[in-house]
Amino acid sequence: MNEIKLFCPATIANISCGFDVLGLCLDNTGDEMLVRKTKKKGVRITKIIGQELPLETEKNVAGVAVLAMLKETETDYGFEIEITKKIKPGSGIGSSAASSAGAVFGVNKLLGEPFSLNELVKFAMKGEELASGAPHADNVAPALLGGFTLVKGYDPLEVIKLHSPKEIYATVIHPQIEVKTADARSVIKQTIPLKKAIIQWGNLAGLVSALYTEDYELIGRCLHDEIVEPMRSPLIPGFHKVKEAAIAAGALGGGISGSGPSIFALSKGKETAEKAAKAMAEIYKDFGVDYDIHVSKINTEGVKVL
Amino acid sequence: MNEIKLFCPATIANISCGFDVLGLCLDNTGDEMLVRKTKKKGVRITKIIGQELPLETEKNVAGVAVLAMLKETETDYGFEIEITKKIKPGSGIGSSAASSAGAVFGVNKLLGEPFSLNELVKFAMKGEELASGAPHADNVAPALLGGFTLVKGYDPLEVIKLHSPKEIYATVIHPQIEVKTADARSVIKQTIPLKKAIIQWGNLAGLVSALYTEDYELIGRCLHDEIVEPMRSPLIPGFHKVKEAAIAAGALGGGISGSGPSIFALSKGKETAEKAAKAMAEIYKDFGVDYDIHVSKINTEGVKVL
Repeated sequence: MNEIKLFCPATIANISCGFDVLGLCLDNTGDEMLVRKTKKKGVRITKIIGQELPLETEKNVAGVAVLAMLKETETDYGFEIEITKKIKPGSGIGSSAASSAGAVFGVNKLLGEPFSLNELVKFAMKGEELASGAPHADNVAPALLGGFTLVKGYDPLEVIKLHSPKEIYATVIHPQIEVKTADARSVIKQTIPLKKAIIQWGNLAGLVSALYTEDYELIGRCLHDEIVEPMRSPLIPGFHKVKEAAIAAGALGGGISGSGPSIFALSKGKETAEKAAKAMAEIYKDFGVDYDIHVSKINTEGVKVL
Repeated sequence: MNEIKLFCPATIANISCGFDVLGLCLDNTGDEMLVRKTKKKGVRITKIIGQELPLETEKNVAGVAVLAMLKETETDYGFEIEITKKIKPGSGIGSSAASSAGAVFGVNKLLGEPFSLNELVKFAMKGEELASGAPHADNVAPALLGGFTLVKGYDPLEVIKLHSPKEIYATVIHPQIEVKTADARSVIKQTIPLKKAIIQWGNLAGLVSALYTEDYELIGRCLHDEIVEPMRSPLIPGFHKVKEAAIAAGALGGGISGSGPSIFALSKGKETAEKAAKAMAEIYKDFGVDYDIHVSKINTEGVKVL
């Protein structure tokens, strides 16, 4: 195999009570990527369609992730990568993660899969470090493993793929407003009341249990973020109205996708997820804010070979 | 049915990363209780064997729990209760919870089971309120439902029975030292770093996943308490040595049982749990501290009819 074409999925991180640990992988929203073996060693980004992003390997998240990987293996050939970006950077659905995850997945395939998916997470995190200054796994873990993923911890890094209930659909709305990552971070207080932390981990533990038992109503009752949503939601105009509209339309619950501005809802069944989409869109129509909207089942595979 | 004899199990609350939410039920450690219908209405505690505890209904945890229950149902008869206490009060394995849970379970049976187990938790919490000043469900939930239980939250009260891996055994050592509940509470800081909270809920989410997938090694890797164990363990002489001895003997992990002074370890298989018991006991022998020790499989039933 000298060339591979990939679907690099968008992802939702910081799923409500699972701030910094729980993410999921979308199925029909993502980038495309071509990875090709070359005689010349190293890795080059040869083309990016759809967004203005740096082609220099060291300045591109896909390039940096692959460089980290190639440091740990011997090859006598190299790689070139073409990316068709469909996920908008800054949308809060893992645009940089899709590129980092796709690139290491593709190169690993062409190398004959010397690395496990869990090992690839570590390399893809180098791309996230370039994009955001912090080597987090929130989006690259679900992009690589698929389904619902838990970043159990970083010391050592351990990522766990949880059970995905078959009928869960995600709705994500991306209002065309800018939330600066610096702002999304600076509003987060670094100490929190123990009481609220206990409520949060009770909800998260309930949510994980509900994923395994496929208890959709319980999933809904656990989708509450006591800690971060109250701090970040003021940065997203109309957040509460959009979330409430989704729930009123039948969604189980929702929250901020990543660090925003996208807002997600989870529903049982495609029909309800589409009703939620309509209701969420209605709010931004009233506000006169442009938006993209996605309805997707959970992608339990992660990055896919096309 | 006019009379019922019960086994009222001991329980472990605050399972490591599951502070205030995660508990489990022991199988061969507990009290016995006799509940009998009487012509006279109301509830009377007629005998307590094994401990000096108040017989007055309003001052006894079992009495108070049953009174709360009788307020919500009509009967033209009453109940008397005899308790044989085998769990020492103040040991940290749910002595008061065993009595509260057993009493409401027994009366409910004699009433023809008008209440669900989840409803009984609410009544048994009234006993806990009398015992400790706070109506918590940490011990009464596993005592009533059996297995591993999650107190998802209190507003509204929701208790979830999780999956119990078949081969898990608990070892609990109770050093004969007094840790005052007031001290165990006063050492807990009411604000915590967000970073530590995230580590904690990553571990708890991992633990819940590991219970469902019966991944014993992962259970061990998740049994870390970032928050409360560092605050409370100085109150328990030899805590770290005892915990380390258990792990060195093959236990998956452990922590403080309830608010102490008991220390628990979880193991895969009875043999390992007994090895852990021996190693834990050795530490207190060296210290010249008296102790009780229990090795038990997980009781997935909760209170049992004898």
